[in-house]
Amino acid sequence: MSITEDIATMARAAKDAAGALARAPIAQRNEALFNIRAAVADNRAAILEANQADVEAGAEAGLDDALLDRLALDEARLTALEAGLTQVAALSDPIGDIRDLATMPSGIEVGTMRVPLGVIGIIYESRPNVTVEAAALCLKAGNAVILRGGSEAIHSNTKLGELLASGLMASGLPAAAAQVIPVVDREAVGALLKLSEYIDLVVPRGGKGLIERVSAESRVPVLKHLDGICHVYIDSEADSQKALAIALNAKTQRYGTCNTMETLLVARAKTGLLPELVAAMQAVGVEVRGCPGARDAAPAITVDASDIDWSTEYLAPILSVRVVEAVDEAMAHIARYGSDHTESIVTENAETAARFLREVDSSSVMHNASTRFADGFEYGLGAEIGISTDKLHARGPVGLEGLTSRKYIVRGDGHIRQ
Amino acid sequence: MSITEDIATMARAAKDAAGALARAPIAQRNEALFNIRAAVADNRAAILEANQADVEAGAEAGLDDALLDRLALDEARLTALEAGLTQVAALSDPIGDIRDLATMPSGIEVGTMRVPLGVIGIIYESRPNVTVEAAALCLKAGNAVILRGGSEAIHSNTKLGELLASGLMASGLPAAAAQVIPVVDREAVGALLKLSEYIDLVVPRGGKGLIERVSAESRVPVLKHLDGICHVYIDSEADSQKALAIALNAKTQRYGTCNTMETLLVARAKTGLLPELVAAMQAVGVEVRGCPGARDAAPAITVDASDIDWSTEYLAPILSVRVVEAVDEAMAHIARYGSDHTESIVTENAETAARFLREVDSSSVMHNASTRFADGFEYGLGAEIGISTDKLHARGPVGLEGLTSRKYIVRGDGHIRQ
Repeated sequence: MSITEDIATMARAAKDAAGALARAPIAQRNEALFNIRAAVADNRAAILEANQADVEAGAEAGLDDALLDRLALDEARLTALEAGLTQVAALSDPIGDIRDLATMPSGIEVGTMRVPLGVIGIIYESRPNVTVEAAALCLKAGNAVILRGGSEAIHSNTKLGELLASGLMASGLPAAAAQVIPVVDREAVGALLKLSEYIDLVVPRGGKGLIERVSAESRVPVLKHLDGICHVYIDSEADSQKALAIALNAKTQRYGTCNTMETLLVARAKTGLLPELVAAMQAVGVEVRGCPGARDAAPAITVDASDIDWSTEYLAPILSVRVVEAVDEAMAHIARYGSDHTESIVTENAETAARFLREVDSSSVMHNASTRFADGFEYGLGAEIGISTDKLHARGPVGLEGLTSRKYIVRGDGHIRQ
Repeated sequence: MSITEDIATMARAAKDAAGALARAPIAQRNEALFNIRAAVADNRAAILEANQADVEAGAEAGLDDALLDRLALDEARLTALEAGLTQVAALSDPIGDIRDLATMPSGIEVGTMRVPLGVIGIIYESRPNVTVEAAALCLKAGNAVILRGGSEAIHSNTKLGELLASGLMASGLPAAAAQVIPVVDREAVGALLKLSEYIDLVVPRGGKGLIERVSAESRVPVLKHLDGICHVYIDSEADSQKALAIALNAKTQRYGTCNTMETLLVARAKTGLLPELVAAMQAVGVEVRGCPGARDAAPAITVDASDIDWSTEYLAPILSVRVVEAVDEAMAHIARYGSDHTESIVTENAETAARFLREVDSSSVMHNASTRFADGFEYGLGAEIGISTDKLHARGPVGLEGLTSRKYIVRGDGHIRQ
């Protein structure tokens, strides 16, 4: 059989399994998570052995240290994986609730019920723990899942896939509810992305290249997360201490995350803050680039910021700073250069804050808080399958609810339409 | 300039206009609807003249009577159009509300705000009234809209587009908030579907060919409505009178609508109903096709139903009937042949009904009610841009809320992430 046929067979099996999952009561879905946790705990040695094969092959293939680190599992990471399964099991059931019930003039009662999506495809890169973490979220929400990890993690993922299957079967659920694609061919992804008949959602997790490829090719709806070019705007009526603290935290708490600030916008009336702020950034090793106005206000900035800077997600200790007249110019800059991820205003003026919250068209808009808060756990979602920069279906951090949909239910007593 | 460039220019202008729309208070958006209504009222003669040109060209090109009827405007249809604008203006503002506010352990307050989607593309076929009706819904929800009607309605649509623009401008809003594509080239649709940078959602309204083409080509998310192969299942514990009334209404109240029943499933214990039911269907001119069990129970059925019947949206006075053992077989038939649109169970057993409501994976699932109720107005949405058979974002009848999204808002007081 060809890869395309193999993948279609897996997808059909997943669709059948999705029906069983959707019917399974929450106790059974949670039991599956516990049984998967037990399977991981009982097979740590085998997991680490498979992972060792991946790491050795990766080292031989010349993967850099950062990639090898993401690829590697150890006892501590397996402990974290098991704890993650416990946490997901503890979350309340995201499906089945009925909402907005109302009786219509015709006499029928109409409401909506939260239900699973069906079959979810997860396409990710090197970290093998995603195999279990993403599967757990999908299963909790009553969905079947097809997992396609990076080729460099194939041994680890195949082993973890076996454990997912055994945990499901031990709970009386079909093994096909969580399947790892067992081959590394690139063709497999292309085949998966065409199967809109069986697959309801694809979630690509990884670098921009992966996400752009998936978005371009997919016939299945994609929950995607592209750049995080996040802004903090220090308004003319900002509290200086809050502004300094938020800017520093938003840039320096972690450099490689999508909710890290990349550009700082400062109202002209507040440029007096810049020397102290730039010094604080430089003290922790951040390179600061500025527009002419910023360089005038803080001569310690020795690098010009260009249009390319305003459009770049550095993911590194680099910050671009631009002076704007006021909130309108800040919002115009964000609309032009931002990526609709997360922006924050620092101001004591409630009216200006309200305008910013309403008018900035990003998945998270903040007032007097660090952009670093844009995160499923910080938002109380309990878990996160990703952060969506799309506007449809799910926007911003996506938890279990993003893996469900709502259908209409109608109750009558023999009602017919006149 | 090429068509592709022209369309890109329109889309950029729409994106700019969307910002103004999103900022416009509800009073101004409603004023625009009233001004559009006045523009239509003041220019009825010019609209009808443009429409006459379309109808004459259509007749010359050999369009059939049904198509010509859909294309034609008259005084009564313009009155209905104006009344529709009044109705949309009367709906409550779908944007701006803040929900689910909660304080997190970190101290930040997190909630969501309903906001416009941005720019919506509507691609439709012959009916020119869609130009105004769809634009009204988009504008009400704070979105800009680009309208692409059928080539046979180009004169009518271009004229109506001028009136949309003049109504917007009279309200202080940008004319580019509602633009009709003024050329008939097929290339224009292809160009529109590639502009995911500027357009947030495409809604195709029309036949299966149009919707499949748009879905296949689009890089922009699509809100699509494919087939409506709707089922009524008469359970062994159905009330016979309710079953007869619902089946007749679901099939015969209108034949050409997507929520019309195409297949009737009858529990073996209830096949005694079939002779009366088939006679009633045949009495109003419905051709009944049946499985062997149905033909045994009701010899008046003289046509065999085949696999093709179970998979066909007739949109015509034809009904296929299948005898099943019980609810499980009914649900299996629906899962295999249905189109996830609308299904109804007739039963007095609350437990069986609850299972059906929960387990059938369709956009509307009903108990003791006619499938013909699956409709935005019947569900109290106040208006309907379409019926979605997709699972993401919006499912079932889509009203104003489906033209919006929710973004996260976060409020702190200098909060930083630890």
